[in-house]
Amino acid sequence: MSDSRPIGVFDSGIGGLTVVKALRDLLPGEKIFYLGDTARIPYGSRSPTTVGRYSLEMAEMLTEENAKIVVVACNTASSVALPKLKEHLSVPVIGVIEPGARAAVAATRSRHVGVIGTRATIRSGSYEKALRSLDADLRVNSRACPLLVPLIEEGLLDDEVTDRVIARYLEPMTNDGIDTLVLGCTHYPLLAAAIARFLGEEISLVDSARNCAGAVRDLLDRQSLRAPAKNPGSLEVTLTDAPDNFLRVAREALQLEIGEVRLREVLHPAKV
Amino acid sequence: MSDSRPIGVFDSGIGGLTVVKALRDLLPGEKIFYLGDTARIPYGSRSPTTVGRYSLEMAEMLTEENAKIVVVACNTASSVALPKLKEHLSVPVIGVIEPGARAAVAATRSRHVGVIGTRATIRSGSYEKALRSLDADLRVNSRACPLLVPLIEEGLLDDEVTDRVIARYLEPMTNDGIDTLVLGCTHYPLLAAAIARFLGEEISLVDSARNCAGAVRDLLDRQSLRAPAKNPGSLEVTLTDAPDNFLRVAREALQLEIGEVRLREVLHPAKV
Repeated sequence: MSDSRPIGVFDSGIGGLTVVKALRDLLPGEKIFYLGDTARIPYGSRSPTTVGRYSLEMAEMLTEENAKIVVVACNTASSVALPKLKEHLSVPVIGVIEPGARAAVAATRSRHVGVIGTRATIRSGSYEKALRSLDADLRVNSRACPLLVPLIEEGLLDDEVTDRVIARYLEPMTNDGIDTLVLGCTHYPLLAAAIARFLGEEISLVDSARNCAGAVRDLLDRQSLRAPAKNPGSLEVTLTDAPDNFLRVAREALQLEIGEVRLREVLHPAKV
Repeated sequence: MSDSRPIGVFDSGIGGLTVVKALRDLLPGEKIFYLGDTARIPYGSRSPTTVGRYSLEMAEMLTEENAKIVVVACNTASSVALPKLKEHLSVPVIGVIEPGARAAVAATRSRHVGVIGTRATIRSGSYEKALRSLDADLRVNSRACPLLVPLIEEGLLDDEVTDRVIARYLEPMTNDGIDTLVLGCTHYPLLAAAIARFLGEEISLVDSARNCAGAVRDLLDRQSLRAPAKNPGSLEVTLTDAPDNFLRVAREALQLEIGEVRLREVLHPAKV
């Protein structure tokens, strides 16, 4: 059995393209429909109620596009909106938190794990919860790193200022003895090289984008939802507001082939 | 003649509190109603159409609060939405661009001015336009500085990383010979000390928040709209989504007395 419908992926903006990149690498025959809510980015500084409302709207736009699965390529939305999405949607929903937590538990030897993300993701405690449900005695250090996303969006992926900010954020964790670090924001894989340089070889990096793609493949296999083997695969990118400089940064850094980017407005209450 | 109605001030978030601080200092007897659109921040990365729509909605919420004047304490909204607001509103509207441009033209001796702001403000070319309409032969260097807002919101107002980023952004301008720099974003006055340290004494800093407050005072005087002399003055802050860490940063750095912060939702299309 096979299923030609697209994989639907949404994020608050462009960052979720790291998940798309991982999906394209792992599942080259799948059609991917990516929806970035650039009109309302960033979700990371918004209240859980607001994030839940936006997320459901994005997910419904994906199911209207006939998505066979909805991938929440946004840690903030995965943190706070996943139960609501699972309740409201008739297709499977996969976030980035649980796959990342599983990979971290598999990687750690000292059972001491670090997690970095946006303020909203860290404040939600979702990674701690997911990690502890897998290993109740795990020690977890978590830290919000609000400067990393803007540095990435400026394209400062290999830059001394970024290296200093990374050191500032991570030094307390490495001093405290973590042996595994979860990149709990879909932007962060773009800094994987810089972060790995700081961490050295002794500390494992868990890339939530790559682990999420693995979980999508497993689910498609389990439910016989893979595209027919000979399908060419494709990527369609739709945004809710015109992209800025970061689309160029992401496209180049990920070496992702993106055709024409479409725009679709979310409805607004303004009387204009 | 006098007028007890409040001065309405809006911004895409908390940054406009620098304008409020300047208004409180200059016009201590006025009531100020501040509305921060934290649910949809940042305007700086959005399209002009979207910014126009959001701005009109915010301005109408202020006139519903009986504002006698609407102050657009947001450079992005001032750049792209001022004509639309003036057309739709029955009360006077003042933005931050023109007062800043006037002050810069008054300050420069070499007639070579620098402007820094968000991507949207710089891309709009509004400062160049306002500056050149005052002095057609002025030389203007402008530069988008997208990292400054997140650094400010992290509270890194006096920090080596921030100093490096400032130097990176401003060095080409100072090398090129500007003698005046316009802080074209209402967040930036919080970095005025750090920026002045980099610029030295030879280069004038134009604080658009302070100049905007001066323009408000002049307009109230011209139109006999000042509050009665013995009024105590007050500040009410309303946001469209729960504030994050930056409210604490701004409150401390500005030494602004803010009572209870109210929340008011903007309408959304989601079916939740």
